[in-house]
Amino acid sequence: MKNILMLHGINHNMFGKRDPVQYGTITLAEIDARLQALGSELGAQVESFQTNSEGAMCERIHRAFEERCDAVLINAGAWTHYSYGIRDALAIITCPVVEVHMSNIHAREPFRHHSVFAEVVDGQICGFGLESYLLALRAALAQGKQRGAR
Amino acid sequence: MKNILMLHGINHNMFGKRDPVQYGTITLAEIDARLQALGSELGAQVESFQTNSEGAMCERIHRAFEERCDAVLINAGAWTHYSYGIRDALAIITCPVVEVHMSNIHAREPFRHHSVFAEVVDGQICGFGLESYLLALRAALAQGKQRGAR
Amino acid sequence: MKNILMLHGINHNMFGKRDPVQYGTITLAEIDARLQALGSELGAQVESFQTNSEGAMCERIHRAFEERCDAVLINAGAWTHYSYGIRDALAIITCPVVEVHMSNIHAREPFRHHSVFAEVVDGQICGFGLESYLLALRAALAQGKQRGAR
Amino acid sequence: MKNILMLHGINHNMFGKRDPVQYGTITLAEIDARLQALGSELGAQVESFQTNSEGAMCERIHRAFEERCDAVLINAGAWTHYSYGIRDALAIITCPVVEVHMSNIHAREPFRHHSVFAEVVDGQICGFGLESYLLALRAALAQGKQRGAR
Amino acid sequence: MKNILMLHGINHNMFGKRDPVQYGTITLAEIDARLQALGSELGAQVESFQTNSEGAMCERIHRAFEERCDAVLINAGAWTHYSYGIRDALAIITCPVVEVHMSNIHAREPFRHHSVFAEVVDGQICGFGLESYLLALRAALAQGKQRGAR
Amino acid sequence: MKNILMLHGINHNMFGKRDPVQYGTITLAEIDARLQALGSELGAQVESFQTNSEGAMCERIHRAFEERCDAVLINAGAWTHYSYGIRDALAIITCPVVEVHMSNIHAREPFRHHSVFAEVVDGQICGFGLESYLLALRAALAQGKQRGAR
Amino acid sequence: MKNILMLHGINHNMFGKRDPVQYGTITLAEIDARLQALGSELGAQVESFQTNSEGAMCERIHRAFEERCDAVLINAGAWTHYSYGIRDALAIITCPVVEVHMSNIHAREPFRHHSVFAEVVDGQICGFGLESYLLALRAALAQGKQRGAR
Amino acid sequence: MKNILMLHGINHNMFGKRDPVQYGTITLAEIDARLQALGSELGAQVESFQTNSEGAMCERIHRAFEERCDAVLINAGAWTHYSYGIRDALAIITCPVVEVHMSNIHAREPFRHHSVFAEVVDGQICGFGLESYLLALRAALAQGKQRGAR
Amino acid sequence: MKNILMLHGINHNMFGKRDPVQYGTITLAEIDARLQALGSELGAQVESFQTNSEGAMCERIHRAFEERCDAVLINAGAWTHYSYGIRDALAIITCPVVEVHMSNIHAREPFRHHSVFAEVVDGQICGFGLESYLLALRAALAQGKQRGAR
Amino acid sequence: MKNILMLHGINHNMFGKRDPVQYGTITLAEIDARLQALGSELGAQVESFQTNSEGAMCERIHRAFEERCDAVLINAGAWTHYSYGIRDALAIITCPVVEVHMSNIHAREPFRHHSVFAEVVDGQICGFGLESYLLALRAALAQGKQRGAR
Amino acid sequence: MKNILMLHGINHNMFGKRDPVQYGTITLAEIDARLQALGSELGAQVESFQTNSEGAMCERIHRAFEERCDAVLINAGAWTHYSYGIRDALAIITCPVVEVHMSNIHAREPFRHHSVFAEVVDGQICGFGLESYLLALRAALAQGKQRGAR
Amino acid sequence: MKNILMLHGINHNMFGKRDPVQYGTITLAEIDARLQALGSELGAQVESFQTNSEGAMCERIHRAFEERCDAVLINAGAWTHYSYGIRDALAIITCPVVEVHMSNIHAREPFRHHSVFAEVVDGQICGFGLESYLLALRAALAQGKQRGAR
Repeated sequence: MKNILMLHGINHNMFGKRDPVQYGTITLAEIDARLQALGSELGAQVESFQTNSEGAMCERIHRAFEERCDAVLINAGAWTHYSYGIRDALAIITCPVVEVHMSNIHAREPFRHHSVFAEVVDGQICGFGLESYLLALRAALAQGKQRGAR
Repeated sequence: MKNILMLHGINHNMFGKRDPVQYGTITLAEIDARLQALGSELGAQVESFQTNSEGAMCERIHRAFEERCDAVLINAGAWTHYSYGIRDALAIITCPVVEVHMSNIHAREPFRHHSVFAEVVDGQICGFGLESYLLALRAALAQGKQRGAR
Repeated sequence: MKNILMLHGINHNMFGKRDPVQYGTITLAEIDARLQALGSELGAQVESFQTNSEGAMCERIHRAFEERCDAVLINAGAWTHYSYGIRDALAIITCPVVEVHMSNIHAREPFRHHSVFAEVVDGQICGFGLESYLLALRAALAQGKQRGAR
Repeated sequence: MKNILMLHGINHNMFGKRDPVQYGTITLAEIDARLQALGSELGAQVESFQTNSEGAMCERIHRAFEERCDAVLINAGAWTHYSYGIRDALAIITCPVVEVHMSNIHAREPFRHHSVFAEVVDGQICGFGLESYLLALRAALAQGKQRGAR
Repeated sequence: MKNILMLHGINHNMFGKRDPVQYGTITLAEIDARLQALGSELGAQVESFQTNSEGAMCERIHRAFEERCDAVLINAGAWTHYSYGIRDALAIITCPVVEVHMSNIHAREPFRHHSVFAEVVDGQICGFGLESYLLALRAALAQGKQRGAR
Repeated sequence: MKNILMLHGINHNMFGKRDPVQYGTITLAEIDARLQALGSELGAQVESFQTNSEGAMCERIHRAFEERCDAVLINAGAWTHYSYGIRDALAIITCPVVEVHMSNIHAREPFRHHSVFAEVVDGQICGFGLESYLLALRAALAQGKQRGAR
Repeated sequence: MKNILMLHGINHNMFGKRDPVQYGTITLAEIDARLQALGSELGAQVESFQTNSEGAMCERIHRAFEERCDAVLINAGAWTHYSYGIRDALAIITCPVVEVHMSNIHAREPFRHHSVFAEVVDGQICGFGLESYLLALRAALAQGKQRGAR
Repeated sequence: MKNILMLHGINHNMFGKRDPVQYGTITLAEIDARLQALGSELGAQVESFQTNSEGAMCERIHRAFEERCDAVLINAGAWTHYSYGIRDALAIITCPVVEVHMSNIHAREPFRHHSVFAEVVDGQICGFGLESYLLALRAALAQGKQRGAR
Repeated sequence: MKNILMLHGINHNMFGKRDPVQYGTITLAEIDARLQALGSELGAQVESFQTNSEGAMCERIHRAFEERCDAVLINAGAWTHYSYGIRDALAIITCPVVEVHMSNIHAREPFRHHSVFAEVVDGQICGFGLESYLLALRAALAQGKQRGAR
Repeated sequence: MKNILMLHGINHNMFGKRDPVQYGTITLAEIDARLQALGSELGAQVESFQTNSEGAMCERIHRAFEERCDAVLINAGAWTHYSYGIRDALAIITCPVVEVHMSNIHAREPFRHHSVFAEVVDGQICGFGLESYLLALRAALAQGKQRGAR
Repeated sequence: MKNILMLHGINHNMFGKRDPVQYGTITLAEIDARLQALGSELGAQVESFQTNSEGAMCERIHRAFEERCDAVLINAGAWTHYSYGIRDALAIITCPVVEVHMSNIHAREPFRHHSVFAEVVDGQICGFGLESYLLALRAALAQGKQRGAR
Repeated sequence: MKNILMLHGINHNMFGKRDPVQYGTITLAEIDARLQALGSELGAQVESFQTNSEGAMCERIHRAFEERCDAVLINAGAWTHYSYGIRDALAIITCPVVEVHMSNIHAREPFRHHSVFAEVVDGQICGFGLESYLLALRAALAQGKQRGAR
């Protein structure tokens, strides 16, 4: 059984409450449920963590390093574009890291085109709403297998 | 009676203690007292909140969304220039939001000229010290009335 | 009785005639009437001046310097973004100067984000339609009092 | 009979007097005569206006708005590259507006490549000397017809 | 009888099929028919060529150079903004070259504001839909006459 | 049965032959076989197309528009960063389009960070090698279902 | 006797009235008197002209072209940095043109470092207060002599 | 006895755990022990504080201001490059502040070249690993003595 | 005997036909004859290939990779400045690659200063007309020898 | 008698030998003779110094500081645009410093528009050939008198 | 006994003579004496070298390479910001190199924020006046020891 | 017999001593010997000159102008990227000038991509180590012959 950590960033506790045109009506709980269901199917246990505090996010990542979890999925929301602190935290962990976004960030406001995490993650999936998360879980498991095979 | 939320950002608990040439000697308590007095006069109840934690600020904004408060005034201090996290939180609320600054940010260091909140607030008032807050309260109430009239 | 000068810039004689979605239906005459009414209430006499000529605007400002008026309010319209000439004229006067905009210029086209007047005015109020003017009048009077108190 | 307004900008009263290598020897009067002749042929009356004053140009545009003229042709000369004031005036009028230049501005000094009017005009014709004006008249009439047909 | 070559660039075979809001419903065949009709009227024979291959476009331009055609009209579509190869091909031909665009490229996405052909064409016409092509044909014939007259 | 079109861009016929450190040893045939296998499993038929000619790529996309295929997957290789021609072709099609990259383009040379397709695709998946393609197929099918549900 | 035209730009009628630390206490009348005195000594008649209207400035330059004056001195104030209109007017005249500034513009705010007139004037003198004007008169006469000698 | 405050920033609790090639194997506890030992030798008491929360860091700095500590050493990690909030907190304190980095930030990724603290600290020491901290302590004590001597 | 491949890019079939001031009167056939003659002298067989199609160029480079030719010379013309596709093709081949230009591209229009091939070629020779090709052949042979010696 | 130091920079020993179209045929000796003659007339002794060594130039400026000369004139040639070393040397001296250029540097190549000396000189005179030097001498003497008068 | 070389750059022979507000009154001789005294204490012999000639500076660095000195300290003054020549000389030496500045260069004029040496030195110490040199000596010795220990 | 001058720039006396991975083990003496040998073969006498002093380099170029040497080869090392002084010296000479670099400067650090000499040299050869020099000699002789033939 693989241990996968899903990290939800700033303001994401409001999913399903804020502007439905931009983000849909799905809640964080629903996303987590869908991830856990898919995880079961694929032999992985998915733990989720949400915080609005940059420090708490970094410390959760530190713990992931110590727990030697098998992969990390992260949708850091607006932090994606300025938190070099979280970037440096992600740079510490050695398992696969997959960056996820519900919307296609490259087609939104210019400040959202650049991810400061890019150089420390394995890859990025964006634009598919809830499906982005599910694809990220698959990506993380495949990435882990590939690394394991080396 | 209107419910107005005044949000004070990072380092603002130090008002009245730090460099008086740049910021004057007024304290946060005095600002809040003046806001409450003016609020009483104009039929509004002003609640104030100060935090140095970005996460706490976002969560207070989330609560404002749920409490359906009538308007939000925000002087986020240095966060104004980089916290896309707070920007995204402000984008959630639907009541009027007024951005306040004691000093004229457009005449200070270049990094202070740009507000990352601009696209999600109704307007901005800056340069008038304590008076900026009082004007912002009036602006918020007027803005609310105008929206209500539509 | 304080003497306040309200300066209306290029194209503003068309207020109430052009695109009502962007600017509303209010006319310059109505703005001036509202300013005068609020002025009476606050012990100030408000004189208004509109011109589409940069030179006439500068010369009106020169006269304000000579008349020693108590405060200047200015909504220079598009000139805000390129007329270093008006900027230099404003730099001459020594009473408080308040920059006003009906719309939130920081949320419009990029060329409207930068005010070339910023370094020579006391503060800026934008985004509240007609109310921006009324707040500016209050700001100017408060600013004058504060300076007088020094 | 359509009413077309031809607006000539800053320094254009000097056409035919200044450097003939750059601009040819044609005068403004000749341009206007050719426009009127073509107008007669095409069922349009062309009125011309030249000014070196930005304010006068804006006010003539305001009048065009009130007169409900059928189309506006404008060669604003150097103002094309910095007068946001004229841009805002043009944004007011609702009939077709065609931007004209005698020379191919995109092949001259870099500051001439960008037109601040672009977002508020229907189209641009440049590089064909006198012919640019005649083509612009045809464009305006065609544009009007097309809009009329909707 | 003048020989005029109309060059249609990448994706333009899809005219009339793709998004009608942006480009209208007119097809390439209709544009060519209208150009030929106007050509007949003005004493010119218009040959059209469409390709989605940059190399084929360059080679057609080379042939135009060898055939000594009297003028070239070109709407290169997206190539306008990056194909320095086509630019260099156009630089070879010595007859008038007119750049055409259906939409006003200066009012669309920033990447469409700059034409890499600008320095090697006589002029540009944009923003008038089908009419842009007809005006370009007139411009080319006038330009040729003017050059011939020197 | 859904019809999915996989588009392989410039130089991709060399997969499995060039630098294995950067791209692995997998060939295009193997990628296509894996896509077809997964397609069968998920009820989709995957057709693949590779070309080194921008024109041929555009024309294949035009045909996809006419064939009304259910989704397009595209890894355009280096074209991603400059072919506005392919961008405009993709803008024509109305089914879901998923952008795929084997490597994490945001962590490579600066010229690879920007995709000129971003505004006309549904989303992007990059960094997972062969797995990127498989995830893209899942994304496309999910995206189609979601759109179908509306 | 040489005819020299001294052009004073926007806000310069306020010399001697505004901030004496930045500009000294000298008035325009005194500058003109000093120029005329030096002119007499050097065999030149100096006519001065001040305006706050860009159009009036251009038209005075047009007249200088027609009067065939022997040299033009210009301190255009803030227009130096944005008036392409005055630049184009200056480009018309064929006698020497000398750009004058009281202060060293290269050592003031960044926007004052760049003169849009640079390419159409013979030279620039800045930083010497009143003396800048007198040196400019000498420069203009010397420049004229040198050109005459060719 | 001088009171010195050592501030450790975001992710620094992980020192000695993360990538040893970039940062070595030393832990925060070891750094603090070495600082205390050197402090004893030089007549100073060194208190250390680590946090991953920007708000907690600011509040610790506020307390330093109130405790009137004799000098502050700060290695803020990634915050160095974007936390204007911490910058504003540092601007409040009046004792010497020394910025420390283990690695030579000017030779790493471009985003690490710029310190947003630069204008509010006395100096910067970077590139010497553990030794950077010890040098910073010496610098702070020397700086304090020098200021005291004035 | 060494096998050398000379690649001629877009529009180069027109050498000797287009502007002789910029490129001289030499034809591609003459360049190839001179290269073959020098090749014979130096023990190398030179094969030439010209195309105006980016795809054909890439495919010829792919074949060079498979044929294991000893060196490649390339003058890609305008593609040098934007074809990342050809760049990626060149990155595949492992023999020496020499970039050639007849004119000194660093002294021409700004867009010609930057070669997108730079990071994947051994060196660049520009500015010597026909001689540039002959020098490139010598460079390629010397480069090959040097690599062989390792 | 005032002591004035004229500093001639890099390559200026070649005046009168190099391209006469750009710089005229005047030699350094002639310039110095003219300066001395004018100096005699105005009560000043002019000493000249030329060097092609940045170090020698700085050391001559150091000596000027120690000799307490009354003013410095400097035409540093190409050093003007990059030698921050000479800039720092000039910043040491306390007498007036006048920057001289024969040509109008603001109308030449972009790299010549910016002077790194601007913030440490009193003013700049450029564009008048030999006359630039003579005007600079007058400017320096006037500047000195003005400072003396304070 | 370690051999340490202290390199003093352009204009630094003027220390103690120029603006004392910016640099203090300390002379180079005093700095060297303090360095030698601290050197003795720490078991190092410090040799100093000052030059205003870039070439002499490079040649002294070359000699340091040949003498195999144990560490180099360098305060190159203004050269820090543009002398890629000295940068390349420093890149040759293999012992530790420490960059020193008296003032905090990151808080001064923008051109002083960037050191062209950064990538070829071990670290940088700035802002502590004379103390910067003493700290640099300690840093160099510690750095050497650490390297020796590997 | 042609007289060719080879100019070696800053730090190049260290060739063969510094980092052999970047520059190889060849010394300046070997390069010069190879140049002389090839010169003999081709009927040219090659004189070499190395200096680390910008002034000495300029003066050697001045002498080349006076000696009327037949061609100049220059590898100025780091000066290539900032010495406008050497650029201006090279602009004086009228014989062919060839710019040489051992490494491919366009594939190294960004500051090495731009040559400030580009506009004043005939061409550039880079990337072939020692061979770059030999090719440059051939280029210079060919360039001279070609110019002679005009």
